Amino acid sequence: MTSEFEIIQRHFNKKTKHTILGIGDDAAIIKIQKNYELVVSSDMLVENIHFLKKTDPSRLGWKSLAVNLSDIASMGAKAKWVTLSISLPKPDQIWLKKFSQGFFRCAEKFGVDLIGGDTTKGPLVISITIMGEIAKGQSLLRSAAKINDDIWVTGQLGNASMGLASLQGKIKLTPPLKMKCVKALEIPMPKVLLGVHLSKFAHSCIDVSDGLIQDLGHIIKNSKVGATIFLNQIPCEDFIKTSKKYHFALNGGDDYELLFTAPVKNRTHIEKIAKETNTQVNRIGIISNQRSIKIVNENGKLLSFNVKGFDHFA
Amino acid sequence: MTSEFEIIQRHFNKKTKHTILGIGDDAAIIKIQKNYELVVSSDMLVENIHFLKKTDPSRLGWKSLAVNLSDIASMGAKAKWVTLSISLPKPDQIWLKKFSQGFFRCAEKFGVDLIGGDTTKGPLVISITIMGEIAKGQSLLRSAAKINDDIWVTGQLGNASMGLASLQGKIKLTPPLKMKCVKALEIPMPKVLLGVHLSKFAHSCIDVSDGLIQDLGHIIKNSKVGATIFLNQIPCEDFIKTSKKYHFALNGGDDYELLFTAPVKNRTHIEKIAKETNTQVNRIGIISNQRSIKIVNENGKLLSFNVKGFDHFA
Repeated sequence: MTSEFEIIQRHFNKKTKHTILGIGDDAAIIKIQKNYELVVSSDMLVENIHFLKKTDPSRLGWKSLAVNLSDIASMGAKAKWVTLSISLPKPDQIWLKKFSQGFFRCAEKFGVDLIGGDTTKGPLVISITIMGEIAKGQSLLRSAAKINDDIWVTGQLGNASMGLASLQGKIKLTPPLKMKCVKALEIPMPKVLLGVHLSKFAHSCIDVSDGLIQDLGHIIKNSKVGATIFLNQIPCEDFIKTSKKYHFALNGGDDYELLFTAPVKNRTHIEKIAKETNTQVNRIGIISNQRSIKIVNENGKLLSFNVKGFDHFA
Repeated sequence: MTSEFEIIQRHFNKKTKHTILGIGDDAAIIKIQKNYELVVSSDMLVENIHFLKKTDPSRLGWKSLAVNLSDIASMGAKAKWVTLSISLPKPDQIWLKKFSQGFFRCAEKFGVDLIGGDTTKGPLVISITIMGEIAKGQSLLRSAAKINDDIWVTGQLGNASMGLASLQGKIKLTPPLKMKCVKALEIPMPKVLLGVHLSKFAHSCIDVSDGLIQDLGHIIKNSKVGATIFLNQIPCEDFIKTSKKYHFALNGGDDYELLFTAPVKNRTHIEKIAKETNTQVNRIGIISNQRSIKIVNENGKLLSFNVKGFDHFA
């Protein structure tokens, strides 16, 4: 029978690039640059809660890391190190090979070292802690939005939740759109390149993991401000607009786009770094002093909406 | 229904002592002291694999952190920050209250800040990443044992595995011994105080989590040396000696004692720091050049033994 040591040796012990001591001792050892701070985030993914049972293990490996990279990007930091703990029912070599391939494809693309973790028998659960660096005091906090800031978002919203709804048979999409949306769900592309530049130009940032409204809610609550969102400026598929299924764009989870606020004077800087990093950005609203989120349509009419995003216990 | 935000707010959002930004943003922010390195370790605990279903949640909270503290102690480092991710079937407030109380009892005793994590619905799985600091280059590695080093161990070996065997009805202990052994299993005391002093006097160190022989095996393999262990010098309960059930002391898991090697000239220093930190230490053998582990009895006779410790997939 395969031991946990063999699993780690075979699938997870890759050469590190910026680590003093990687996998193989009681702990890993890393060094933080002078005048830099360490940014740390953890996430847990559970089968049938965060991903469907049949999810391709390679895509799951990618996504497990990508969603954590998104958290570090939303701080404006550069992710560098990650630990990965997996419990799985049996040491399935094919599953492990595919999972680790997807994981390392993402790790190599974004320059992250796997430095430790754990493997154990149990239900399929993946737990990741990611660490990044940022120059002292430069992190983009949820609490730093200012009144009159533009509200920006990267990419398109709602695609991942449409992908999930489509796989569950709840909506019917054209085959090309379904493929696009399932890809958004299963192989999200964290906005890492834009993130590291944003700390110079944005006031606050969060990644959209639980839905636009819920995540914007964290910014306005922590910053003690409000927000007005222009519905027709939210970047989303025509399917959402024509079918009026705006809940995908407003409340859909798993998008992993960056939602950030920045002073009006930085518009051209932001458009420039977006272009340089090949990242779609859209201005979708403004920060107000009203302590709530308002959504208005193209005629300026206030719309009512359901504030609920995704919550794992609600 | 309770949301994950409420769970975190109610049970896990405690004031931090040495953290720039704790729970509540996309990531936490910490600062490492100048000329110090960061030491990082992760562990995953699964119900019915690492702990019994009926385990008291307060003890489980303590143990979840304690076993991770042990990893940092075995590097000779000082643990300071921890992230905690939990998946649990339902948001059971009583369970969460007790678990968090045990967790924070341990965190406060050893000066560790909880800085992040995740809570989600799922099977009961606890995943922890712990971070500590150590002066540059001072970590105690598995690969640094030297020929003729003394082999030392803290505390007693075998108690935790006897506790488990007793709970499972596999052995019968007197009630006081059973209580002692179950306590060793469920509320292990990581050797944090000794650990931070060891880096000055020891060459290599590991914590005994998978059994003495298996963990000593990591040291001799990584250090390219061998070891001779004197059976009668292994600190363990008389029950093990009289019943000749030495497998508890040699292969039993979950002890979380420190196993370290140090030059003979440091014996008095080690005994002094052990006394100062109120930690039992015993010399149980010597590092040899023979590339294997030998166990000898009081007459110098070589004993055969089963090399297997605890492995979650074997």
